[in-house]
Amino acid sequence: MKLVTFAQNGLTRIGAVEGEQVIDLNAALKAKLESEGKIRAEKISEAYIPTDMKGFLQGGKESLELAKESVQFALNNESAVQLVFDKTDVKVGAPVTNPGKMICVGHNYREHILEMGRELPSHPVLFAKFANTIVGPEDDIPFYPISEQLDYEAEFAFVVGKRAKNVSQEDALDYVAGYTIVNDVTYRDIQRRTIEWLQGKAVDGTAPMGPWLVTSDELTDPAGLEISLSVNGEERQRSNTANLVFTVQRLVEFLSELMTLEPGDVILTGTPGGVGVAREPQAFLRDGDVVRIEVDKVGVLENKVRKVEG
Amino acid sequence: MKLVTFAQNGLTRIGAVEGEQVIDLNAALKAKLESEGKIRAEKISEAYIPTDMKGFLQGGKESLELAKESVQFALNNESAVQLVFDKTDVKVGAPVTNPGKMICVGHNYREHILEMGRELPSHPVLFAKFANTIVGPEDDIPFYPISEQLDYEAEFAFVVGKRAKNVSQEDALDYVAGYTIVNDVTYRDIQRRTIEWLQGKAVDGTAPMGPWLVTSDELTDPAGLEISLSVNGEERQRSNTANLVFTVQRLVEFLSELMTLEPGDVILTGTPGGVGVAREPQAFLRDGDVVRIEVDKVGVLENKVRKVEG
Repeated sequence: MKLVTFAQNGLTRIGAVEGEQVIDLNAALKAKLESEGKIRAEKISEAYIPTDMKGFLQGGKESLELAKESVQFALNNESAVQLVFDKTDVKVGAPVTNPGKMICVGHNYREHILEMGRELPSHPVLFAKFANTIVGPEDDIPFYPISEQLDYEAEFAFVVGKRAKNVSQEDALDYVAGYTIVNDVTYRDIQRRTIEWLQGKAVDGTAPMGPWLVTSDELTDPAGLEISLSVNGEERQRSNTANLVFTVQRLVEFLSELMTLEPGDVILTGTPGGVGVAREPQAFLRDGDVVRIEVDKVGVLENKVRKVEG
Repeated sequence: MKLVTFAQNGLTRIGAVEGEQVIDLNAALKAKLESEGKIRAEKISEAYIPTDMKGFLQGGKESLELAKESVQFALNNESAVQLVFDKTDVKVGAPVTNPGKMICVGHNYREHILEMGRELPSHPVLFAKFANTIVGPEDDIPFYPISEQLDYEAEFAFVVGKRAKNVSQEDALDYVAGYTIVNDVTYRDIQRRTIEWLQGKAVDGTAPMGPWLVTSDELTDPAGLEISLSVNGEERQRSNTANLVFTVQRLVEFLSELMTLEPGDVILTGTPGGVGVAREPQAFLRDGDVVRIEVDKVGVLENKVRKVEG
């Protein structure tokens, strides 16, 4: 499934994308249960498919199966309540808007590390973003007047689907709900003015995410996916997730040895070479630029840069 | 007021500490409203004083005033429901258990920076922790077998009380809900094995917090507070918040220029000299050690280290 958060008529809910349509998952389950004569339909649908993604992911495979059945119900049955929307009639937001953790991996594309003359790292470099950075696939990237060095970083990301502590690589994918794309937008000079990168990574709106969450039963192998980024149609980054030094499986193992991962946690796996600060000459983002990231089997995330005054 | 989270008979709620008693704030407001004949008492008390601290802080000064009135009501009136508990009959947890952000400041005590021969930094060094690190004042510090270098860091912390973006130093304290103590427990070798510190800072249970949140109408000046830490009664760290290079006010200004701060966000202001890794000889924490942090006008946070197997 392709899962999104979407807003319609002032209400934000989660949905499944089918072609050009979005199915309201909570409403679809409620309608299905009502059609089966379940008097407690509303409370049961709230319990298994709440309207927020983190709550839904906490329900695990049980909730996912109910979501699939609900989509089929919505597509095949008339309902008094609208369950299916045209994508153009709703606003699609980031799939996860309130993760408990956002963990980013630095220096993780093999060919880029080697071309820079560095040695492959023995441990992943980890840093953080927070939920204030998240914007959706239809949002602009705000460009605050705090720096001139706004930079892009194409990242393949995974979302945790099950509480994970001390999980082995072999079992790791059972703990992954699915995959998405994040642009790890970075104020480069602010990132570099101290030894810790957080301040250049934590600015509002610096994590455009989408276009959706592709569930891990649909995208079963996170390796071998081509990833590329262009600015105004000009390609700036290209690699393949086969080049990750620390794979998704290894990252689940590594992270879950340190900490308990929870459903909804978002892990960004790193960016290939070609970021603006490393180019000759340097090429930072400007007001109006369109940044497009494409990942095989996931989709396209495209956002426009918009200067914010004051 | 001194605000806590507390658990009693399986329910976790927020309370105010008065001497050796804890007042259940949500229940106290409900009882007060009922005594005034308000039929919607339960819904109104949920709206203004929910049972979690982040929700309560979102209510701002209006909710804080209601909380004060509710405490007076609970202390002065009989009630069918128990509103006042002996502290020994409940479990006191961390004041904030689910902050949206936990931001830590490194290298922020002037005398320690100068004694190390370093220059005063031009910008705060920022790094992150996540909510999985939080444990309460009555909890042990779990010591996982992933490292031998468990270290302590006494920190004076503040909690955001009002959404803050581009707030000046002059107005900063209006945005601070109150103050608490956090031990920024660190797996030192893990912190240092890459250039970014996060992985040594994000291990489960590495942020004991408490003993409560002292509200900023009670503790009006965050400067000039003595801070000290001892291990098994032996003093290891001592300084004063007057020595902070970046004050609470400056940190609110600095952070809110970068990002939107939200009620419940926890900011750790840095640690004085004397951490275990910097001692001669080095002195890391061991199973059974008792770490005690005291901050003037805030109180004492004391936790025992407990080795975790496997």
